[in-house]
Amino acid sequence: MGITQRLLQYGPTGGLINDLIAQQLQVDEGIAATADRVLVTSGCQEAISLCLPALCPTLSDVLLVCNPTYIGATGAARNHRIPIEHIPNTGSALAAYIEDAAKRLHDRGYNIRALYLIPTFDNPTGYVLDIQQREEILTLCARLRIVILEDNPYGMFRFDGVPVPSMAELDHTGCVIYLSSFSKTLAPSLRVGAATLPLTLFGSRNAREELMRELLERKSLLTLNTSQLNQGIAGGILLQQNMSLRSWVEPARSFYHHNRNTMLNCLDREFNAMNKQIRWNKPEGGFFISMSLPFDFDSDTVTDCALRHGIIVMPMRFFALDESQNRDIRLSFSSVSPQQIQEGISSLAKYVESRLASEMPPQ
Amino acid sequence: MGITQRLLQYGPTGGLINDLIAQQLQVDEGIAATADRVLVTSGCQEAISLCLPALCPTLSDVLLVCNPTYIGATGAARNHRIPIEHIPNTGSALAAYIEDAAKRLHDRGYNIRALYLIPTFDNPTGYVLDIQQREEILTLCARLRIVILEDNPYGMFRFDGVPVPSMAELDHTGCVIYLSSFSKTLAPSLRVGAATLPLTLFGSRNAREELMRELLERKSLLTLNTSQLNQGIAGGILLQQNMSLRSWVEPARSFYHHNRNTMLNCLDREFNAMNKQIRWNKPEGGFFISMSLPFDFDSDTVTDCALRHGIIVMPMRFFALDESQNRDIRLSFSSVSPQQIQEGISSLAKYVESRLASEMPPQ
Repeated sequence: MGITQRLLQYGPTGGLINDLIAQQLQVDEGIAATADRVLVTSGCQEAISLCLPALCPTLSDVLLVCNPTYIGATGAARNHRIPIEHIPNTGSALAAYIEDAAKRLHDRGYNIRALYLIPTFDNPTGYVLDIQQREEILTLCARLRIVILEDNPYGMFRFDGVPVPSMAELDHTGCVIYLSSFSKTLAPSLRVGAATLPLTLFGSRNAREELMRELLERKSLLTLNTSQLNQGIAGGILLQQNMSLRSWVEPARSFYHHNRNTMLNCLDREFNAMNKQIRWNKPEGGFFISMSLPFDFDSDTVTDCALRHGIIVMPMRFFALDESQNRDIRLSFSSVSPQQIQEGISSLAKYVESRLASEMPPQ
Repeated sequence: MGITQRLLQYGPTGGLINDLIAQQLQVDEGIAATADRVLVTSGCQEAISLCLPALCPTLSDVLLVCNPTYIGATGAARNHRIPIEHIPNTGSALAAYIEDAAKRLHDRGYNIRALYLIPTFDNPTGYVLDIQQREEILTLCARLRIVILEDNPYGMFRFDGVPVPSMAELDHTGCVIYLSSFSKTLAPSLRVGAATLPLTLFGSRNAREELMRELLERKSLLTLNTSQLNQGIAGGILLQQNMSLRSWVEPARSFYHHNRNTMLNCLDREFNAMNKQIRWNKPEGGFFISMSLPFDFDSDTVTDCALRHGIIVMPMRFFALDESQNRDIRLSFSSVSPQQIQEGISSLAKYVESRLASEMPPQ
């Protein structure tokens, strides 16, 4: 088949650039990936939508998520009528929560089959799981036969601190499916992502091959194949960059780094003396800072902030599965300029001050 | 937002080129489409995968299909646990079959919510429904509140005879969702398609708007948005062609036309005197001819034909929901040269002759 045919005709369901993605995972993430275990998808969101129903085929098969979490994961589960259970997204002690949830569900006739996790610079919280937590979760999930869907769209954007190995790199029992997104590293409009299966699924190579066949079947009924034009662009950049996107993302990483610093400085300046119940984390990378406020932050508040104060923040409740996040918000520093950050945090501070004055008893 | 941002960032869930697609539907298909009723999808297959679960939300909501039919429709239904009912794909009397199926199912507590149909140059049969049949089906579906998913990937490839209006053009009660594919007119690798909703859904504008909201929600959880790069290519061609793809497809149409003629001539020459049970249709367009043989044609036969005779044909049973198609095959003349057609039909004739000699009693 000539190059024109390969670029314009129907293409292989599983992808064209699987080998290049496998190499990038080896070089950039230390993951021992091979081309036959890579499924190229129309963005990482499709990978999630393919994996969830394949891993949770019956109505007693449960997806476990952190609360709050990326709504694309819970939404995809709902679309496939997959029951969702959640554990607190505290950034620590997750293994204990998982074990707890598994027991609780088992007693009610349910089994956790998949755990959706963004272990590095989580969306929406910005948390990073340390290596000890990762190991604990891996050991537990291997024992309980829970497949971990490791979503890692922000991992390349670390600004300081020591890198933590990905769950897929640490996985030696075959329980991690690694989800690649090129939306943050290349461009969202490429709609190229990937799911990379472990060498074995809980020790069984057959089970992994069976899972890949099922994912291919599902992919062929969802989008047939990922556009070869877009795979060609992604693959071309990977080739030109010798399979590493580290230097390619450097300008963006540096931009986000500066933005994170600006936002943390502004938060310190504006909020440190305001109220002790106002807290925020200081993530070492990623796109997001999470912030706790001493009052409810709902969709009316969002509208009010946007229209009257010129700032857009995301209430954590948008990502939540219960009421526990009603006072938290997510601040994003990825697609704004430093000046917008300064003005935005100033506006937010004024808004918060006025809310405190009108609602809170004097301290 | 600048052009670079629009091309590279996340884009609107529903699409960027909705207005251009609406205009193309007006010009090329006579469909009174408007941009707000067009949902751009990552290929027509995604449109099917979005519409089916939205139209069949409960376990008593049934998809009706012809038998045989395109496996992408039945496969997508199965992935969403949607019950499938089928009627004979005879190319005629469909309305009576539909009414029958609706009664039969209703008595068992089921309701047909959607009818998947390729009314023009059907895949796999090549059949075209005439205007009277289309009107009958439309009247019936309006009465029974069955949404027709009109899939029309081959409609632009008519070689002779009088064009029949699309079901969407004839629809005045709001029961047709028109599925556009640009795979055959532009290129499969673009992965750009669309679903266009009727002005009202069975008379209700609210119901149509509600359906569009649900499709958008589902799309946002499947592929987020269709690549703007690919939409840009499709949209650019539409603009450059003044919103009509008629002249753009002319070289392909003419190529397929010649191929269809070649294949029909070869079939006449090779099979006319062979056996009266060997029959085939003479489609006025599209990609496929269907052929009935006096013996079983299964996947072993496919392998045998491919390896020993150098021909690939599709057994109709691959598209079938029961055993009724076991002796039929689909011949495709779209991606072969006239010489390959001549050699292929010759080989097929030799194969069929040998099968007849070994299996059939002398006539």
